[in-house]
Amino acid sequence: MNGFTYYAPTRVEFGIGAEDKVGQLARDHGATKVLVHFGGASAVRSGLIDRVCASLDEVGLPHVGLGGVVPNPRLALVHEGVELACAEGVDFVLAVGGGSVIDSSKSIALGIANGGDPWDFNIGLRTPAGCAPVGVVLTIAAAGSEMSNSCVITNEETGVKKGCNYDICRPKFVIMDPELTLTLPWYQTASGCVDIMMHTMERYFTSQATMQLTDEIAEGLLRTVFENALILHEDPSDIDARAEVMWAGSLSHNGLTGCGNGGNDFSSHALEHELSAAYDVTHGAGLAAIWPSWARYVMDGCLDRFVQFALNVVGVDPEEHDTAEEVALAGIEGMEKFYHALEMPTNLHELGLDLADGDLAELAHRCAVNCGGSRGAAKILHEEDMLGIYRMANA
Amino acid sequence: MNGFTYYAPTRVEFGIGAEDKVGQLARDHGATKVLVHFGGASAVRSGLIDRVCASLDEVGLPHVGLGGVVPNPRLALVHEGVELACAEGVDFVLAVGGGSVIDSSKSIALGIANGGDPWDFNIGLRTPAGCAPVGVVLTIAAAGSEMSNSCVITNEETGVKKGCNYDICRPKFVIMDPELTLTLPWYQTASGCVDIMMHTMERYFTSQATMQLTDEIAEGLLRTVFENALILHEDPSDIDARAEVMWAGSLSHNGLTGCGNGGNDFSSHALEHELSAAYDVTHGAGLAAIWPSWARYVMDGCLDRFVQFALNVVGVDPEEHDTAEEVALAGIEGMEKFYHALEMPTNLHELGLDLADGDLAELAHRCAVNCGGSRGAAKILHEEDMLGIYRMANA
Repeated sequence: MNGFTYYAPTRVEFGIGAEDKVGQLARDHGATKVLVHFGGASAVRSGLIDRVCASLDEVGLPHVGLGGVVPNPRLALVHEGVELACAEGVDFVLAVGGGSVIDSSKSIALGIANGGDPWDFNIGLRTPAGCAPVGVVLTIAAAGSEMSNSCVITNEETGVKKGCNYDICRPKFVIMDPELTLTLPWYQTASGCVDIMMHTMERYFTSQATMQLTDEIAEGLLRTVFENALILHEDPSDIDARAEVMWAGSLSHNGLTGCGNGGNDFSSHALEHELSAAYDVTHGAGLAAIWPSWARYVMDGCLDRFVQFALNVVGVDPEEHDTAEEVALAGIEGMEKFYHALEMPTNLHELGLDLADGDLAELAHRCAVNCGGSRGAAKILHEEDMLGIYRMANA
Repeated sequence: MNGFTYYAPTRVEFGIGAEDKVGQLARDHGATKVLVHFGGASAVRSGLIDRVCASLDEVGLPHVGLGGVVPNPRLALVHEGVELACAEGVDFVLAVGGGSVIDSSKSIALGIANGGDPWDFNIGLRTPAGCAPVGVVLTIAAAGSEMSNSCVITNEETGVKKGCNYDICRPKFVIMDPELTLTLPWYQTASGCVDIMMHTMERYFTSQATMQLTDEIAEGLLRTVFENALILHEDPSDIDARAEVMWAGSLSHNGLTGCGNGGNDFSSHALEHELSAAYDVTHGAGLAAIWPSWARYVMDGCLDRFVQFALNVVGVDPEEHDTAEEVALAGIEGMEKFYHALEMPTNLHELGLDLADGDLAELAHRCAVNCGGSRGAAKILHEEDMLGIYRMANA
C-alpha cells in the first residue's frame, strides 16, 4: 500500500432521459450564462442540442452555442471559444459530447477564468488560479474526461498534443444517458471500449505496491467492459451493455482504479498521443495498435502483474501453461484476440499506417521530449525504449 | 439498470502520517476557527489530538476542543457543541474519531448553519438550508460516515435513534491513516468489519434490477473485507490489512456499491438501530446478531442474489449442493461461521441480550414507526415481519 489522494467531486446523473435535468443542474451550480459547446452536426441532427437548449430555456438560463470540436481537439477552436465566452459574459461551459468536447470545454473554462492563452497550462508555462465551472452531457463512453482532471489539447500549428491535470478542471456534473450512445458508429464504440479499459490498465500495470481492493475493482471493471464490448459487437442496441460501458468509462479514469498503486504508467497513452497528433488516428484504436507491443516489451519487469491480469481479466487457464511467462503471454494474446473480435487493430499496419523507420524515430523523439525524458511505472521507458516499442508495433 | 445519482465529493488523503496535513486542508476549505470534536480519552492519550492541534497551529488556525462523544452519539452533546461553536465563532467542524464523532460533528455543523435544534432534521421537521464544512481525521474503519451523507443521532431523552441524509453534510475531506486504527480493541475492529460489509450488503440484496459493474465492485469489496478481517484476527498489527479495511469502509458507504440497483434495503440497519437505541450495543455487533435471521426470513424473495452472494463472496462450492436454496443457505451459514471466527455474535443471546417477547414486540413497533411503516428492497418488511425476524434472532 502506498498513500494516495482520491478526489472525484463530480455529481453523476445517470439514466435514460437524464439530459432533461441539465438546465436545473447548471442553475444549481451557479450558471448565469452558458456556452453550449459541441462537436459535429450529429448532435444537432439528433435533436440533442435542441433538447439541451430547451432545458436551459426552461429555467431561464441564456446561452450561446459553439460547435465544431473535432477528435484530437484543436487549440484554434479553444481560442475562439474563449473569445466568444468573454464577449458574451459566459460563466458556465456545458460540454455536449465526448472526451474531445469536454477537454475543449475545460480549456475554454481555464481561459475564461485566467485570461491569456490556455495552452500555457498544457505546456506548463503557467499554473491556473481558477476554472469556470464545466458541466457535461456525455454522448460517447470513452475518454473518462467527464470525471477526470485531465485536459488534452492538440496545438495544430506545432503538431503537439499535450495534456494537463488540474483538480479545478473536474466537471461539476455529468449527465449520462446510455441511449445517447446508441447512434455511434461501431468504430467509435469499439475505440471507446479500448480507451476505457486502457485507463485502468495504465494504473494496473505497475512494479510498485498495490492494494487488493483496488485490484478487485480494476479487474471487475475490466471484465465488465471486456464482456459488454463483445455483447455490443453482436448487438449495438443493447442498452444495458451500453450502460455498463458508460459507467465503466467514468470510474476507469476518475482515480478509483489506481488508489494505492504508487504511480500510474500511462506509457501506452504517451506513445499513442504522438500517433494521433501526427496522423490523426482515433485514440482508442491507436491504443489497441500500441498496447500489445508495449506489453511484450515491458512484461519481464512486472511479470506477476501480467500473470494476474491474464488469469483474472482475460480468463487464461493456468493448467494449459508451464511457466509464468507463458501465462503472461497468453494474456497478451487474449487481448489481441479481443481487439480483433472488436475489429480493432493490434499493430500500426492494421491501424492503416505505413511508416518508415525515420518516422518511428521522429515519433519516439517527440514522445520522449513530451514526457520530459522518460515515462512509466511498469517499466521506465526512455527514447530508445519508445523507439523499440514503435518498431515492434510496426513489424 | 436503473437510473441513479452518484455524488461523493469528499477529498481523501490516505496514508501513514497523513494527519499532519490537517491544518493546511482545513485552511484550504475556508476554515477561520475550528471546533475539534472527539470521543474518549484515548485520542488525547495517544497524542493524536495534540498532533492535530499542532497542525492547526502551524497554519495559524485558532481552535476549540470538545470531547466526550460516545457510541450512539447523544443529542445533548450536539446541543453543547452548537452552543460552544456559536459562542466561539467556529465556522469549521473537525471530527477526530469514527462514525459517532463524525455524525455528532455533522449535526453540530447543521446547527451552526441553520440555528435551532438540529434534531429537527433527523425527525424530518425541517430541511436544512446549509451546513458548516466538516473535515475528518478517521480513527475507526466502520461507519463510512466520512464520505456519506448520513448523520445518525440518538435522542437519549426519547430513546429514538434516527438518521437523516443530506448531501450538504458530506465531509469536505477525510484523512485516513491506517496506523491510527492499530490501537483499537479487537471487538471494535471486528464490529467495524461487520458494519463495512453490511453497508454494501444492504445495497446488494435487492429484488430490483442491478448492474454488472456495481456487482463486481460490491463483491470485490466484500471479498476484500472478508479476507482482511480474518488476517487482522490473526495479526491486528497487519498494516496492509488495516489499510484495505479502512479504504473499503469509505467506498462501502459513499454510494458506489449501490449504483443502478434501484433502491437500497437497509432493513438490518433499521432493526439494529432499535437494539442499539434501547440497549446501547455496539452497532456492528448488533448487525451481526440480526443479519442471519433477516437473511433467512427474506431469502425466498430474491433467491438469485443470495445464490450469487454465496458463490462469489462466501466461496460456496455449487457442486456440494443440489438446489439454489441450499446454495443460498450455505452462504448464510458461511457468514455465520465468519462472524464466529471474528468473535462476533450471530443472534441476540450471543450479543448478550436476554429479551422477553414483549421486548421484541416493542422493538418491532418502534422499528416500524421509525421506518414510516415499512422498509426493504430485498423484501418489504412491515411490523409483523420485523417481529418475526427479532424472534428468529432471539430463538
